[in-house]
Amino acid sequence: METHSIKTWPESAARLIAVAAGREAADLVLKGGVWVNVHTRELLENHDIAIADGRFAYCGPDASHCIGPATEVIDAKGQYMIPGLCDAHMHIESGMLTPAEFARAVIPHGTTSMFTDPHEIANVMGLEGVRLMHDESMMQPVNIFTQMPSCAPSAPGLETTGYEIKPEDVAEAMSWPGIVGLGEMMNFPGVVNADPKMLAEIAATQNAGKTVGGHYASPDLGPAFHAYAAGGPADDHEGTCEADAIARTRQGMRHMMRLGSAWYDVETQITAVTEKGLDSRNFILCTDDSHSGTLVNDGHMNRVVRHAIECGCDPLVALQMATINTATHFGLERELGSIAPGRRADVVLTSDLKTLQINRVIARGVTVAENGVVKVECPHLKWPEKVRKTVNMGRMLIGADFHITAPKGANTVTAKVIGVVENQAPTKALTAELSVVDGMVEGDPAQDVCQIALVERHQGTGGVVNGFVSGFGYTGDMAIASTVAHDSHHMIVVGTNHADMAMAANRLQDVGGGITVWQNGRELALVKLPIAGLMSDAPAQEVAETADKMVAAMAVCGCTLNNAYMQHSLLALVVIPELRISDLGLVDVTKFELTELFEKGK
Amino acid sequence: METHSIKTWPESAARLIAVAAGREAADLVLKGGVWVNVHTRELLENHDIAIADGRFAYCGPDASHCIGPATEVIDAKGQYMIPGLCDAHMHIESGMLTPAEFARAVIPHGTTSMFTDPHEIANVMGLEGVRLMHDESMMQPVNIFTQMPSCAPSAPGLETTGYEIKPEDVAEAMSWPGIVGLGEMMNFPGVVNADPKMLAEIAATQNAGKTVGGHYASPDLGPAFHAYAAGGPADDHEGTCEADAIARTRQGMRHMMRLGSAWYDVETQITAVTEKGLDSRNFILCTDDSHSGTLVNDGHMNRVVRHAIECGCDPLVALQMATINTATHFGLERELGSIAPGRRADVVLTSDLKTLQINRVIARGVTVAENGVVKVECPHLKWPEKVRKTVNMGRMLIGADFHITAPKGANTVTAKVIGVVENQAPTKALTAELSVVDGMVEGDPAQDVCQIALVERHQGTGGVVNGFVSGFGYTGDMAIASTVAHDSHHMIVVGTNHADMAMAANRLQDVGGGITVWQNGRELALVKLPIAGLMSDAPAQEVAETADKMVAAMAVCGCTLNNAYMQHSLLALVVIPELRISDLGLVDVTKFELTELFEKGK
Repeated sequence: METHSIKTWPESAARLIAVAAGREAADLVLKGGVWVNVHTRELLENHDIAIADGRFAYCGPDASHCIGPATEVIDAKGQYMIPGLCDAHMHIESGMLTPAEFARAVIPHGTTSMFTDPHEIANVMGLEGVRLMHDESMMQPVNIFTQMPSCAPSAPGLETTGYEIKPEDVAEAMSWPGIVGLGEMMNFPGVVNADPKMLAEIAATQNAGKTVGGHYASPDLGPAFHAYAAGGPADDHEGTCEADAIARTRQGMRHMMRLGSAWYDVETQITAVTEKGLDSRNFILCTDDSHSGTLVNDGHMNRVVRHAIECGCDPLVALQMATINTATHFGLERELGSIAPGRRADVVLTSDLKTLQINRVIARGVTVAENGVVKVECPHLKWPEKVRKTVNMGRMLIGADFHITAPKGANTVTAKVIGVVENQAPTKALTAELSVVDGMVEGDPAQDVCQIALVERHQGTGGVVNGFVSGFGYTGDMAIASTVAHDSHHMIVVGTNHADMAMAANRLQDVGGGITVWQNGRELALVKLPIAGLMSDAPAQEVAETADKMVAAMAVCGCTLNNAYMQHSLLALVVIPELRISDLGLVDVTKFELTELFEKGK
Repeated sequence: METHSIKTWPESAARLIAVAAGREAADLVLKGGVWVNVHTRELLENHDIAIADGRFAYCGPDASHCIGPATEVIDAKGQYMIPGLCDAHMHIESGMLTPAEFARAVIPHGTTSMFTDPHEIANVMGLEGVRLMHDESMMQPVNIFTQMPSCAPSAPGLETTGYEIKPEDVAEAMSWPGIVGLGEMMNFPGVVNADPKMLAEIAATQNAGKTVGGHYASPDLGPAFHAYAAGGPADDHEGTCEADAIARTRQGMRHMMRLGSAWYDVETQITAVTEKGLDSRNFILCTDDSHSGTLVNDGHMNRVVRHAIECGCDPLVALQMATINTATHFGLERELGSIAPGRRADVVLTSDLKTLQINRVIARGVTVAENGVVKVECPHLKWPEKVRKTVNMGRMLIGADFHITAPKGANTVTAKVIGVVENQAPTKALTAELSVVDGMVEGDPAQDVCQIALVERHQGTGGVVNGFVSGFGYTGDMAIASTVAHDSHHMIVVGTNHADMAMAANRLQDVGGGITVWQNGRELALVKLPIAGLMSDAPAQEVAETADKMVAAMAVCGCTLNNAYMQHSLLALVVIPELRISDLGLVDVTKFELTELFEKGK
């Protein structure tokens, strides 16, 4: 396996000592900056940092004794020297980018460590897909750690994924060099009910001395919550309010607060620290999901830290939440997360601690970005060909695949409708009275109800599950299809017209996956995501541009919802209430059971 | 190996979950106490704790649903429920007690976790001795972790120990179940000079993912200090002033502040937190060395926490320094150090958070002490017979062994004299003008100068190294001998009379080690320490009583120094300045070299 190499601390110790003592010259010295010390929570003006072998050798008032003829010296006067930023929980696939291109997109923003859960590819390609993500991650000039996905399928019995993750897979992955723990344990009912499979995955992780990621997506803080905490998850990022934050930290869990492209969970929770005065050490910032457009236009962890500061958090406390707190959580506090001897020399220079405009990013002692421009290679893995052949419907679809037959003899039906809620992950379980024409039921634009179909794309079964969705505002003849369809990542097709729906689905099978928008038999926009139907290996800028066009095309079709594509791709997420669709049917996520499309007795 | 067993978290997870969810009954419930939450730093009144399988299952507002017919329920109303206290760095041998008897002495004081460095026995018996301490530790009903001693000898080339610890020994020990890291790396000049042996020990520890203990006993905070930090030690307890505390935490080291029987380093350093406002998470409390008398009369970690509070520290912050901070430091935060689900159910009930009078101590879910009375067995290891046969001088000594020959032709000499400083570990390098009688030099009570001898006791070489010491105030014919002689633990004999000195030394060989005080050819007091010449397997109370008699006997001989015995036993500690004695001769510890007894040219 090709990896971006850095010697371990013990391998470099003799040299680090010699540099600190002044017997050998450093590779790089930063002179006269403000050392942002996240251990003591101090700003130390006019301090120096000496780096050797990609690690900090000396951090103190004067590194003059570490400078030799070959030492590069950077004047850091007037700049803050902050530790490279850490994203404690995130999914690379959400950027529609490969690890290499994701790294390239975030490096200029000062992110040097990411804790990533390749849950999406796990659903499509199983352990092999996780390993490919892991391997490309290990090749990067910054630190991308992998959390072994825990829940594929997310909701066993309610959906069929391309592959399953088993406890044996988890145990095997724990020996890989880049694995830091178990990815978010989304099957919280499973934990609460002591499901042996879930407990075996947690046990494999704990026995390996690694960190179990949590995901308790319920407002219930009663016995079920306590049972989940007793099961072993060591963190959670699903809280949305101050009470959630307080409850989790009291249980000894670290509380991750996310600002993703569509998650806004910092402002509502950080008051646990800023107002209630809880010990901040157990609070951590993360993104969870960032779209490529966000990365290109707004930033990454610097955006999150900036936001936390805007929410009233002390800048040093906010920085701790994106550096040392994260490192400590993953058992890596002696390896990264601070500017201190022996640690990986990941350091960011910024002129302002509040806006966090990033001037220079140094990772493992090398300048990897300067003024927004990446200065290093982010190598691509040679992905096997099969990765580009994951969209297999077994056949071409036709309009009739989207016909919905009414109950015999009915003139109207009361149909269950998935109600999209703007800017929220949960959906509403709505109903609509729909007319029956020639024994068939269709959507009703007047009620903002259109059709949704879940198209099986992993095993080529040819399966199509039909239903209704409301809230997008689509008008005219159109369809949008996506192979990004959390979490099982079949294909979600939403449309007002059966022919357009079929064409959109077929198009994605042709190109190997992505998102396509159709209107009146014509393609308006296409985002190609050929890798597992989830990611592009093009640069973030390009992906963001095609994604922008896709959003514009959705608007042309009548949808003006904020983050409409995100809503689209979450419609099969059968772990978040209330109503979803899967390859097995319509799912009532308040009861975790399959449900009929039509209300009975009507 | 016999061990006190507790199931791991994953082994107990299903039951813990079931109890928290209310499906199974807990073993024990504490009702209505004040939950001292060291994660959030909160006092939570009227909360409940449910325990099963020796671990916390539920911690929250109401555990009624966890109570079944067989559940023991303890009313905790009006009491604080604090996590069992942790001693982050200590030497069991300093109590002159075995691990079992040490445990029995500290359990009533609320200590449930100890991080112990059996450095003394390592010098006497090598790896085998460490393993015996480790094994008896593992048998106890509380958590006694072992730090693998790093420096035997402490100062290679300046002394000969019974055994040496080698990097291979360290690597081997890292696989033992109770080993949490490397004991204090006292050879700080070795680290600063990148001594390959020291770096190999550190590397073996870091590669095992464990914690490297530090010991930087120098006021120099310049490049040498930075070089030491770059070498890998993750903590230090040798600081004595606020500047030491600040310097260490800035380097990412955890700063341990000790209140031992003779160490008073909390008050002078805690101002880094209480006045300078440094992040308290990197500060930890410990004892380092506690005499049995202190344990019997004053307490253990409760004494340290109480003292920290008296020094102005917030009680919750002080408790964090003796619980979660320690656990986090050793990578054990998901195993102990807080009252939170999954952790070992180590909890202490106290009615007052400031005085810390301990009402009840629960360890692993079992009441181990109540109102000062121990309620459990602290099992003794079946120590092998050789452990009781470690005092081997090779022969009986006679008065002539303590004759000091003057340089040829001299009438007076200028002798180097080890100057004892009350209440301080460092000695002063003094000189004294002494008369020569019949070619011999003796001490001079008028100048408070008496003789000191280092008697070889490990290999039976018959070696005796003679010198002079000042400060004890001994008068008349007397001698005191001790096989506790940090760190090589040969035998230190101090006296005014050669015959008494020989009798004292011979006596210790007879009884297998300890401390004996002689006056006019008669034994005044004897503390038997038959195990490695360092420890007794009698209860702390008994040992404390015989130690009191020994101190009284020293006073009879004219010594009124505070902690005179401690000073006596440290006279061979060739790592702390300025002047010491070893089996190789007089040692100048400002230069780390052997030195002559008499000033030249005089």
